[in-house]
Formats: sequence, structure tokens, C-alpha cells
Amino acid sequence: MFYYDGKLQYPVRVETPDPRFARALQQAIGGVEGEIRVCLQYLFQAFGSRGPKKYRDMLLATGTEEIAHIEMLATAVAMNLEGAPGAVQEAAARANPLVEAVMGGGDPRQYLSAGLAALAADANGVPFDGSHVYASGNIAADMYSNVTAEATGRALACRLFELTDDPGMKDMLRFLIARDTMHQQQWLAVIEELGGHPGTLPIPNSFPVQEELREVSYDYVFTGIEGVQPPMGRFTQGPSLDGLGEFRVVAAQPRGQEPQLAPPLPEAYAESQQMMGAAGLSGSSAGTSSDD
Amino acid sequence: MFYYDGKLQYPVRVETPDPRFARALQQAIGGVEGEIRVCLQYLFQAFGSRGPKKYRDMLLATGTEEIAHIEMLATAVAMNLEGAPGAVQEAAARANPLVEAVMGGGDPRQYLSAGLAALAADANGVPFDGSHVYASGNIAADMYSNVTAEATGRALACRLFELTDDPGMKDMLRFLIARDTMHQQQWLAVIEELGGHPGTLPIPNSFPVQEELREVSYDYVFTGIEGVQPPMGRFTQGPSLDGLGEFRVVAAQPRGQEPQLAPPLPEAYAESQQMMGAAGLSGSSAGTSSDD
Amino acid sequence: MFYYDGKLQYPVRVETPDPRFARALQQAIGGVEGEIRVCLQYLFQAFGSRGPKKYRDMLLATGTEEIAHIEMLATAVAMNLEGAPGAVQEAAARANPLVEAVMGGGDPRQYLSAGLAALAADANGVPFDGSHVYASGNIAADMYSNVTAEATGRALACRLFELTDDPGMKDMLRFLIARDTMHQQQWLAVIEELGGHPGTLPIPNSFPVQEELREVSYDYVFTGIEGVQPPMGRFTQGPSLDGLGEFRVVAAQPRGQEPQLAPPLPEAYAESQQMMGAAGLSGSSAGTSSDD
Amino acid sequence: MFYYDGKLQYPVRVETPDPRFARALQQAIGGVEGEIRVCLQYLFQAFGSRGPKKYRDMLLATGTEEIAHIEMLATAVAMNLEGAPGAVQEAAARANPLVEAVMGGGDPRQYLSAGLAALAADANGVPFDGSHVYASGNIAADMYSNVTAEATGRALACRLFELTDDPGMKDMLRFLIARDTMHQQQWLAVIEELGGHPGTLPIPNSFPVQEELREVSYDYVFTGIEGVQPPMGRFTQGPSLDGLGEFRVVAAQPRGQEPQLAPPLPEAYAESQQMMGAAGLSGSSAGTSSDD
Amino acid sequence: MFYYDGKLQYPVRVETPDPRFARALQQAIGGVEGEIRVCLQYLFQAFGSRGPKKYRDMLLATGTEEIAHIEMLATAVAMNLEGAPGAVQEAAARANPLVEAVMGGGDPRQYLSAGLAALAADANGVPFDGSHVYASGNIAADMYSNVTAEATGRALACRLFELTDDPGMKDMLRFLIARDTMHQQQWLAVIEELGGHPGTLPIPNSFPVQEELREVSYDYVFTGIEGVQPPMGRFTQGPSLDGLGEFRVVAAQPRGQEPQLAPPLPEAYAESQQMMGAAGLSGSSAGTSSDD
Amino acid sequence: MFYYDGKLQYPVRVETPDPRFARALQQAIGGVEGEIRVCLQYLFQAFGSRGPKKYRDMLLATGTEEIAHIEMLATAVAMNLEGAPGAVQEAAARANPLVEAVMGGGDPRQYLSAGLAALAADANGVPFDGSHVYASGNIAADMYSNVTAEATGRALACRLFELTDDPGMKDMLRFLIARDTMHQQQWLAVIEELGGHPGTLPIPNSFPVQEELREVSYDYVFTGIEGVQPPMGRFTQGPSLDGLGEFRVVAAQPRGQEPQLAPPLPEAYAESQQMMGAAGLSGSSAGTSSDD
Repeated sequence: MFYYDGKLQYPVRVETPDPRFARALQQAIGGVEGEIRVCLQYLFQAFGSRGPKKYRDMLLATGTEEIAHIEMLATAVAMNLEGAPGAVQEAAARANPLVEAVMGGGDPRQYLSAGLAALAADANGVPFDGSHVYASGNIAADMYSNVTAEATGRALACRLFELTDDPGMKDMLRFLIARDTMHQQQWLAVIEELGGHPGTLPIPNSFPVQEELREVSYDYVFTGIEGVQPPMGRFTQGPSLDGLGEFRVVAAQPRGQEPQLAPPLPEAYAESQQMMGAAGLSGSSAGTSSDD
Repeated sequence: MFYYDGKLQYPVRVETPDPRFARALQQAIGGVEGEIRVCLQYLFQAFGSRGPKKYRDMLLATGTEEIAHIEMLATAVAMNLEGAPGAVQEAAARANPLVEAVMGGGDPRQYLSAGLAALAADANGVPFDGSHVYASGNIAADMYSNVTAEATGRALACRLFELTDDPGMKDMLRFLIARDTMHQQQWLAVIEELGGHPGTLPIPNSFPVQEELREVSYDYVFTGIEGVQPPMGRFTQGPSLDGLGEFRVVAAQPRGQEPQLAPPLPEAYAESQQMMGAAGLSGSSAGTSSDD
Repeated sequence: MFYYDGKLQYPVRVETPDPRFARALQQAIGGVEGEIRVCLQYLFQAFGSRGPKKYRDMLLATGTEEIAHIEMLATAVAMNLEGAPGAVQEAAARANPLVEAVMGGGDPRQYLSAGLAALAADANGVPFDGSHVYASGNIAADMYSNVTAEATGRALACRLFELTDDPGMKDMLRFLIARDTMHQQQWLAVIEELGGHPGTLPIPNSFPVQEELREVSYDYVFTGIEGVQPPMGRFTQGPSLDGLGEFRVVAAQPRGQEPQLAPPLPEAYAESQQMMGAAGLSGSSAGTSSDD
Repeated sequence: MFYYDGKLQYPVRVETPDPRFARALQQAIGGVEGEIRVCLQYLFQAFGSRGPKKYRDMLLATGTEEIAHIEMLATAVAMNLEGAPGAVQEAAARANPLVEAVMGGGDPRQYLSAGLAALAADANGVPFDGSHVYASGNIAADMYSNVTAEATGRALACRLFELTDDPGMKDMLRFLIARDTMHQQQWLAVIEELGGHPGTLPIPNSFPVQEELREVSYDYVFTGIEGVQPPMGRFTQGPSLDGLGEFRVVAAQPRGQEPQLAPPLPEAYAESQQMMGAAGLSGSSAGTSSDD
Repeated sequence: MFYYDGKLQYPVRVETPDPRFARALQQAIGGVEGEIRVCLQYLFQAFGSRGPKKYRDMLLATGTEEIAHIEMLATAVAMNLEGAPGAVQEAAARANPLVEAVMGGGDPRQYLSAGLAALAADANGVPFDGSHVYASGNIAADMYSNVTAEATGRALACRLFELTDDPGMKDMLRFLIARDTMHQQQWLAVIEELGGHPGTLPIPNSFPVQEELREVSYDYVFTGIEGVQPPMGRFTQGPSLDGLGEFRVVAAQPRGQEPQLAPPLPEAYAESQQMMGAAGLSGSSAGTSSDD
Repeated sequence: MFYYDGKLQYPVRVETPDPRFARALQQAIGGVEGEIRVCLQYLFQAFGSRGPKKYRDMLLATGTEEIAHIEMLATAVAMNLEGAPGAVQEAAARANPLVEAVMGGGDPRQYLSAGLAALAADANGVPFDGSHVYASGNIAADMYSNVTAEATGRALACRLFELTDDPGMKDMLRFLIARDTMHQQQWLAVIEELGGHPGTLPIPNSFPVQEELREVSYDYVFTGIEGVQPPMGRFTQGPSLDGLGEFRVVAAQPRGQEPQLAPPLPEAYAESQQMMGAAGLSGSSAGTSSDD
């Protein structure tokens, strides 16, 4: 169960409202690397958590913190849409320069649909999409998914930091960037707790490795055509990270044959010519090299 | 530029066609953890690659391998929709038991829209969605994103392995599971090559850490209400993984105040009562505790 | 800011796990009338709230309650996927009858992607979509949107009630249905507080009605062709609900002319014949009745 | 069955084409509060209508009127993309200032994909999404959904009215705003016809209220943490709107316990450590407070 | 402007309701090859029509006919969800066998969200998506798009015909299949009217062909690797269909070089190692073959 | 199986980077008429190909070529985001004029999410959507779908050609436009090979035409109301293109009756008044004309 206190986790101040920045902030709210995503991702991982209870608790705590981040960012959007003196200068002699500014680089739906407030959408107005809520039931996969979210999320916050000169916005972002620093390492610490690479790889480690085709498990398959050189690196030589094999480079080569599907089933209503095969093609233009 | 040879990377055989399994396989084709996603993700990371050229090459090679995996799985879907003797037994006395089987647990669109073949969609028929193509411009973030894709992808393949008794399908999955084993470690090897945790964290490591609010960078913020105990683990104590701080537990507490947005702008067309504030509310039913 | 206690708002018990019901429950989690939607909708309305503070508080309180409903339902999904004795009986002789059951009417992604847990998606596996988070900046519009969500949500919960015989699930639904009863009336009470129909209509009431074309403001426009009778009701006669006019029936009739767009701009690359007008059509087959 | 006459319901004139306004108008065509949505919503409610025939007729008539509104708005978009003298002034010395204008604040796809015409999308180019077509089978829920659509739709039209100085566009919007005035009240008149609040609440009123957990049916559940004051209003005291109870304030408190899911099923391929429980965690870093 | 008469274009009868068929019919309503798509596609092509007025008229007439097809199919869905005697036999001893049947192969949202009626969605419950409304502003492109819609639509209708034994449903489909026969040829007749292949190709024919790189305009680029034979056909030899060239086979070969993007811009926050180039990689594991 | 060589099919040069053009190019990458779509469409048609093997080969070859087009365009996007001198001039005194430029008409996510590179999305940032991958199992339907893709794709490329003055970009587009010229005719050549209109129509030609309601197979159904004139053309008279009938004009007229659905099933939880029929309506306001 959840509770609120109505206060912000960290102060949100805007000295010079900027509708364009209000648009950019949407990415941190409803984007694929945004706060709605991490909030729901951690909560769904918690709600479906099986195994040691401490991970459910850890996920609940951080998932709950993320709601406060949505709150901060949504507040920041609303404040960037108030007054907007910068916009006034650029805008033409329209009755309302703020509204004009929203149309000239801002997100028009922040005005049209939300009356100058935040949307559950990204910086291009694409609605938040729940398919980014990864909760796989495998804790190692989930931790890496969380690291990814926090790594792309921190990159996003750093880029937002570049887009603004407003002291209040920069201050808010310093806080959010720092929280992402923690969260990246929090999830990686779980990997360490689980034994690091040898303890977790390959993910899922509960599938018996002897069931997989071990002869290709550590091959760097190089698909370059003849004459192109493969890149070399830690991933082409040396022991595999799970400690169970050796990396090597192998040139791509088909082991399988050309697929040959059955002729069309009548009920599938292909064209008649498909059912008749090559014989169904009119005239001599039908290629001979590949039809017999 | 790209080339093909028309052969399968690994043989695809189906002894007993199974329309339900054809539906499940869609998740590995067009699902968020499927092959279209990793294919495009690695290729887009390559196409936008800046920095050491070897990573572009590495990404191109593996992105190209993944097209062959789409090909194998799409072929497997088509073959699972042929004949379907198992389906025949269950199906009622309809003219075409295969078609009937597709409607009874299979994906109806594999028949209705594709004429008994694969779709660019997941196991629920949700179309492949390009927002899952993560290519952040930051190689560490991208590598973790790739590990996530291969970890959830291998979990998916293992689960598909459970769903079938068909020797051909099991054989194909043994191959794909092994390739995921390699790919997980290939991306993690890049992290190692970049110096591991100290070399890469916090991501992006090009943002000067002194710019962030360092006092909260290693806090495990515990949002449980009074009386609830925080979980303890590697993430609550000991040195941070970037080697620059110490983890600690901090109880959540607001540093900010209650947000107070400006009154509605007339142009935003709120209700008049919102613009008048509490005074706009009719009668004595308006609460007094929170409006003054 | 937000907090949690890790306990459920109301007990969740499942006596007889049922994967099909686990699928149906997804609609109440990630569907358009589900709990993620109302949770985010109320929170976004609060975060963007302008005007009397009490409504921000009211929205925060109920938005926070809804997170607990997501938690209950996600827990219910996970529990319906455990053991599943009912499924065992129906399932064939597969190694794992539960997994078989998921494929025979359940949501395959609850197994394939989530390892037997809930998704942020609806009963057909369509991901939650943030465009349903309505927060218009106009409190009357928002209240009616909230009533709609709770009315369709309660209808959904009643239908779920029909789908299960499990005493634990029925008990949980009795609670959720009752909460929807409250929430419907809570939002309607705000309308009453704002003065009911005369106080709120037309929404937004801050747009000066004299600016609209008043002569059509209370017309029931009947678009039936000649010979079809218009339906009669409260909406065709009597005073309008805003107290400012009289309803009446008016047969549809165009006031405008046929639209005549400019010829294609060269830069838009229509076919040449479009730019030449009727003269561009070959031969006498071009109709004469409509081209001159 | 449906018919057309090729004329506009109301004249559409544009004196000064404005590509930015053409973009904004898209929200009224393909947005969540736009005309495609209400058109399909009323038609689908009609097509699935069960019960008194007059409501089917009413819905058909208005759904048909809405097609004409799509026609007007699509025509307005096309006309705003013609000539665009205002754009000419701002644009650089490019060959085609109109095209340049589309790229500077307009919707690029109106040019790139539609050749200077309207799209079935919103003001951010997000395609129309059929999940907003609410037709619940319950007439009261549907009527409130329709009121919501017309209330947000009228707010949108008023905001569009602010964005333009063009006399033709303002004239068209005066008409559309007036029609929304009617439609809001038309749907509310049905609620009145059904007996108002006592006649319709709780929705659906066909579910026996004694089946729900009546002890929480009129509770305003306050989820603020200790020290925060609940808002007071019509929704916290006095008789409930259905006439069957009394509103009251109740502090949130969990009635349920901490959820305890079963350990991971082997077939779900969690990490091995999850299946071993706390015992599976390496070393002493595993928390003790929450694992036993 | 549009009108209705409330009657069906063709009788819709269902002798034996079948919830599974009600699900399959959704593809013809809200699927990518369904009636909402063609309805909106023809109407949007009409609304944006520039050039000879007869095509606007033609598109309006057929777009309006398609609304009646949505009406027929939505009615058919609702009728297939009534009574459902076939379902009764299969269903378990639940109170309501119809509801049970919906959950066992039907679309659960037809019950849960629509109360036993049609949705604006496809056979997998994916909502109708406006991005399939093609209206390019080029009449030849649009006509081929319309042919495609009617060709896939007729294939769908034929497949639906296979799925049912119900005389009423078969009768309705006979009508719809015949209408698709007409509509395919109606659009192709416009191509003929425009002069067929020489009159319309390449589309758009208003772009001066000398501006394109004519030396590759009729090359069948064969991307098979060495040793694979190209297919031969009408597309590899003989005059091109626009009468302006000769088809020929050319083996794929890169004309461009390896792309070399600029190093990461500091503001984009790549990892530091990317900005340092190969020198930034730790140790000797960095490949030498490709970094210098 | 697939291979790469790391080189571009055709040179990509950018003399004057332009972030707005980088945004426009996204339509050709991830738009509905873009290269990801055609690439996957041709590959999926190949993977599911049944019938003469030459078509599988043809589709594989061209599908593989399209990957190289994605590569070219993604490279072009990245290069248009480098340096951007034009942007410098317009931009204000911000630290980084490039970033400023991205926010003023460019796609903010190219910077925020991709670090100045391409996305798998369209020009409005809408993610690539796999539902546009048409592969129907019927070769004639697929060929027309491919023609449509190449016709709209070439129109798009011509419009992009208008938007740029950069010699490198114009050169690249000259190549791509020429390839579209070929691809349009390649697919139409298959139609010719299959026998043209008489050989392929109606699609699918494997459905026995006598099963359809032949009396309406060649009717141009005119839905205009009385007084409106039907358009005349090749589609209203003369032999049908399949050679099996004669086109004619027929005024629309309902053959069916008003649909009358069954009353609401109790389990569907309509409002009680719906179940009672007209009798359930309160008072005399219920219309009499249509309820008995």
C-alpha cells in the first residue's frame, strides 16, 4: 500500500520559463528512458517477485521513490509553461505570446490537451508505452534491464542539463543525475551479491547448459563477406565471462539448407499460380535457373 | 551493404506442426525481447557508432547474424502451420482442421492476415514496435541494453524449449540458446574492455561527477513508512562500485515544499471556478482545511 | 513524495489458480479502464492542478490509493498462475500442465515474458497506453473523465466477478467494486460542489458563450435521410441543462458549399494529370458530369 | 447505411494560410479528444446498442454528424497549407517557402506523407488510436464517456480559437464550439432521462449493491501520511449521490498482509539463487532483516 | 456532409452464434486490411483531393459505402455473441456458458470492455491504428494503396468464409467478397484511365526522370553472395514498364566507402573512451586490425 | 543467412549539416513508407513464400538491398547532426548551437535519446510499427502492396529532394529515387508475368467467383443522396478488368433491415433500464416515435 505527503523530494524552481524545455522534459517523464517507465518497472518487478524477500522490498522502495521523480518533473513542466518571458520576446504580436511559443518548438498538446501542463508522453508526444515495463521473472535479467534504464536515463538527464541555463532547472537535474548514479550501482550491486559473472551467467543460470548446443556457445560469429577483417577484442579471445569456455572467432557459414515450405494450402487463398508452382507462370519469361 | 545466400544458419525441422507453438514463437520474432528488436538495435548502434571503429564492426557482424535468426524463426512458424496433425485430432468436424486449430489457441492473424505464415508481431499479435531499438550514443549504456535483450531473450528461448516436445524445434532452440549465451558475454566483454565498473561508472562517465549533487549519489533512499524495515544488502553498505563513494541507507524525506502552480492562464480555458480559487466554490461544502 | 508499507490494501487469496482468469485480470491492470490508467490520470491531474488546492490534495490521495489497487491485482495475477490444479485436468500429458494451460486460453506472455507474473498490458496483451491519461487542465472535464473511468472500471469488475467462482477472487472484487462505487460519486460530488449543470456547463464555462454560434447551440441535428423519424427525448425538447436555451430538433442541412482545394503544388509531387485537371485524363472515358 | 452530399456542414474559409495552425488542427481530427474518435465512438455505441431503440437512433444521428466535422477540419488543414503568405515572410531564401514553413513548426508529414493535406493523426503526428473508442455496453458509462469527449473537445476548440486570428477559422470554430455545447448536454440529458444520480448510480446499476463490500462504498480513503490534513468537501460528508449512504473520511490502512508468492516454478527459468531463497545469496552481504 | 437511414446494406443473419468467429470478424472491422481503414482511407483521400473533381466524388461515394460495411460487421459480431448454443456444449458447468466461451478462444474484451459487442480493434485486440490511412496526395500511389487494401481485404474475407458454416454469415461474406471484387477493379480502372503503366510510371510522374540517377533505374540489383544464382523473370529483362528503359541484372557492389562519423560531440555524453578513440581502450585486448 | 561488407551502397555526403533535414529523413527510415518497412516486408514475404521459388529469391535479394538503404539514411542523419553551421547562425547565444538547433525544428530525441544519431522512428518521432509489414500469403496482393510502398516511398524521396539544397544529400536522393523507379516496376512485372489483370483478378483468384454474390460484383455503388450526380469514368462503364463482367452505376439502397440486437444479457451489466426496454425510462420524455 502507498502513501503521500504532498511535498517534493527536491525543490523545483524555474526562473525563466521555457516552453521548449518543457517539451524536452517530457522525455524524462514519458519516454522509454523516463520515470514512468522505471517507476512501473520496479513496481511490477516487486509485485511479481519470487525468491528472497529482500529484493521485493528493495524494488518497492525504489519504485516508490520514482513516483516522486515523476511528480518533480511534471511540476517542472507546468512551471516552464508559466509566463515564459523568453518566449515573449521571440513571439510575434499575437494576443498571447506564451501560447505562440508553445506552437513554435514546444509540444502543442501541452497547451491543446493539457491546458499548460505535463502529459504522459515523450518529447515527441508519443504516449508512454507499457511494453517498456520489463519484469522478466529472472532477477539477473531484470537487474541488467534496470541498469540500462538508469544508464540511458542519466545520459538523458545530462543532455537535458545541456539544454538549459536556468539555475533552478540545473539544480533539479543535479539531484536527479545523482540519484541515477546511485540507482545504476544499486542494481549492479545485486549482480555482485549474486556472485558476479560466474554466479549469474549465462542468464538464466537455471537452464542446464549441457542442453544448449555448446559448440557454438562462445563463438564470435563473423558475418563479414570475404575480404573483410573481423574486429578483435576481449570478445574474440580469452576465457568466457562465465568461466566455462573460450571465446573464438568463427566465420559465418550456413549449417542449414534452403528452406522449402509446403505449397499453399487451398484455404489460405494464395493466387492459383502459386499453387500450380512454376507451371502456373505465363510464357517463357519465367526464370529457369531457380524453378526446377 | 548486405548480402544473402538463401540458406538457414541452422537447420529448422518440424516433425509435428503445432499452431499454438507457432503463436508462441512470434514472441521470439516480434516481441520486445525478440530477434527483430536485437537485429535493428545492433544495426542502429552500428550506423550511429562514433569512436573506435572496432565496435561498429562488432555490432554490424552480430546485427547481421540476427537477421538469420529472424529467418529461422519465421521459417519455423510457417512449418508449424503446415498439416498440423496434432490439431486434427482435437479439432471438431470442420472442413479444415488446421484452420480450426489456428482459431483455438493459435494466432488467428497468422491465418487471416498472413495465409499461414509469420507476422512482424509478438505472441499476442502486438506489432513490433521500434521504440525498443535502443541506441543511445553511449557505448556502456548500449552494451547493458544489449545484455538485457540477450538475457530476456535467452529466458524466452528456454521457456519456448519447455513448450515443445518436437525434436526439430528443440534442436533449433538449443542452437539459439547457445548463441544468446555468447551474445550476453560478448557485450559484457566490452564493458570489461572499457575497464569494468571503475572504467565505465557512472554512465555516462563523461559528465563531470562534481556537477551532480554528490551528497545523494550513494544513498539508498528508503521510502517505507515508519515501522517498516529497510532491506540490507551490498547496495546499502560498502564502497560504491565506481570506487568513488560509500553506500548508505537514508530514510526518504522531502527537501522540497508543496508545489504551488500559478493560477490557470485564461487562454487555457479551465473552469471559471479554478481561476477564482477557493472563492469560486459554491456554498459551505468547500473544505476549509486546505484552501487557505 | 510517496511512501509504501509493503502490505496489501485488502487481502488477496486464490483457492484455485486459473490462468484464464489471470489473463482476464490484465484488463483491470493495464486496460483502458484499468488501474494504471486511473492511477496516472489522477496523479497527472494533481501534478498539473491549478486553482483551489483542495482538488490537488483530493486527487493525490485517490491517485495514491490506486497504486495499491495495481498491487492487489498484480498479486492476484501471480497467484492465479501458481499450481493451477484446474488447468492440470484439462491439459494433455505435457511435462508441465501449468505452462500448457497458459497456452490454452491464458496470456502466453505472462509465462514467456514475465515468468508467470503480471504485465503492464490489457487482457489481449496490448501494452498500457499513456494516451488514456486524461488531464485536461479543466476540472469539470477531468471530473467527467474520472467518472467515465470509474464507471467502465466498475462494469469491468462486475464482469470479472462473473468469470470466477473462486471465493478469494470474489472477495477481492467485492472490495474493488465498492471502491469504484465511492470513486464515481466522489468525482460527481465535485461537479455538485461547482454548482452542478448550471455551474459548470458548457465546459469550459470560461469561454464566453456569446463567442460561439448560439443559433446552433441547442439543436439536435438529425442526419437521417428523408423518411426516417428522429428519436425524441429529453435531448430534443425542454430547457437546456445549462439553463441558457431550449433543445429543438433540426434536420441536417449543409450551410457550406462543396470544398474546392487549390490544384496540387508542384513540390508536392502529385501525378501530372492531377495538375492538368480534367484535361489530363486520357480519352473519352473521363466523366463529363463532374469535371467542368 | 450511409449517404453523402459532398457539401460542408458549415463554410470553411481561410484567409491567411498558416502551416502551424494546420498542425494544431490535427488534434481536433485525430487526437484523443478529436472528431474521428467521437465519430467512431458514437457509431460503435449505436452498432452495439441493446435496449431502447431510441438511443441507437440518437447515437447514429450524432455519429453521422461527426463525419461532417472530420470533413470540415480536414478541409481546413488542406486550405491552411495553400500559399501560406505568412510563412513566406519568415522563411529563408529557399525555393519553396511553403515547404520550408511546414518544416519550421508545422507537421512535416502533412507535406512528406500527405502532399499538403490532413492526416489521421494528432497534433504531434501520433496516429489515431482506436482504443479511445469507448462503447461499454452500459449506457450510463457511455453517456459519461461522451460528455468527457465533448468537454475535452470543446476545451480543445476554445484553445484552437486562441491560436488563430484568421476570420474564416474563427468562424468555423464558433460553429464547432456551439455544436460541442449541444452535444455535452445531449448526453447529460439522457442521464436525466434515466433518473439522474439516483436512477443511474452506481454504474452499472444492474449489479446488486449488496454483493459489494458496502462498508467501504462511501469512504473517502485518505492516503496522506501522518501529519497531512485531508481535504474536505462534498465528497467527504453528506449523503452519497446514489442516496444509499453517507460519505465519510477514513485514513488508509492495510487490511491485507504482505504478499508472499510461491517460489519460482522451475519452468519459468528464474535465476537459481531465486529458487534457493535467501540461502542462495553469496556471502554475508545478504540482509538479515528481511530474509528470515 | 453525411446522412444515414438506419438500415443495413445487406442482411446480417446468424443462425448459430460463435464467439470465436466474433473474434475473427474483428480483423475485418479494425484490422490493417479492415473496413475502418478503407473507410477512413477513401474519405481522407477525398478530403485532401486536388485535381479533377470526379475523383473526389468517386472516393466520397465508396468511402461512404464502407461505413455501411463497418455497420454490417459490427452487427455480425454482436449477433455472434448472443446465445451461442455451440459454445454451450463445449463449456464447463459455469453459470454462464457464453461468457465461458468468450474466454476460451474468443476476444475477452468483447465481453469485458464492450459487454458483448464489437471493438474498434483487430482479431488480436490490437486497436485500430490510423497510420494505415494512406492518402499520399498522389492519385496513382493512392489507387495502388486502395487496390492493396481491397486485395488483402478480399483474401481476409475468403479466409473468414472458410472459418464458418453458418449460412447467414456465409451469405453476408458472399456480398462483401463481391464488393471487394468491384473495388479492386474500380481503383485499377483509374490507373487505366490515367494511361496505364506508361501514363503513370514512375510514380510520381511529375518528378523529372532526368533528375534521378538513370543508370540504376532499371537494374535488378542482385545481393546474393558469390555462388548464388539470381532469379530470372520479367523483371530482369525486356523493356521497363514505363517504356523508358530495359531491365537488367546487376550484381550488388558498394559504390560508397565505409562511413566514418565524426567523434562524439561532448554534449552528447558518450563514454569518455569513445571520445578518446582507440587510445581510450584499456590494455592490449583492443583489436589492432580495425582501429588504426 | 546474411552477410555485410561495411561499405555503403552509394556515397553519403553532407556539406552543410541541417538538423531539420535530419528530422525529415527519419520518415524515410522509420515511416510507414520508409526503408525499415520495405526491408522487413520483402523479407517476411520471402520467409513465408510458398509456390515458385523464384519469387522467394527475388524478394530476398531486394529485401537485402533495402537494409543498405537503411544504412545510408541512418548515416545521412548522423552526418546532418554534425557541426551544423547553418544552425549556428540562427541559434541564440547558447553554449552549443547544434543542440539548440535540434530543439528548434529538429527531432529532440535524435539528441536526447540517441546522442545525435538516427532513431527507428518517423519524422514525428512515432516509432516504427511492424503492422505495416504486409505479407499476405497471396503474391498478387503482396506485389500491389510493394508497389504502393515504392510509390509512396518515391513520392517521399522526391519531397525530401525539395527540402534540401545540399549537393551530397541531393546526390544520395537521386540514387534512392532511381532505385524506387526500378522497384515499382519490378513488382508490377510480376503481375504481368502472372498474366496481368485477367490472370490475377479478382485477388485472390483461387476463390471460385461463383461463390460470391455476382450480381453486385461490378456495381459502382453510388451513395450520394438524391440530387447529387455520380461521377462517370472507366469504373462506371465498359468491361470489368478481369474480363468477366460489365461495370455499371447503381444507386445505393439498403437490402437489409434495421438491425435488432437481443436485449442485454444480465452478465454484461448494462444499466437496468436497458434491460427493461422503453418501459424503463422515467417519465413522459421518452420518445414514442421510435420505441414501440
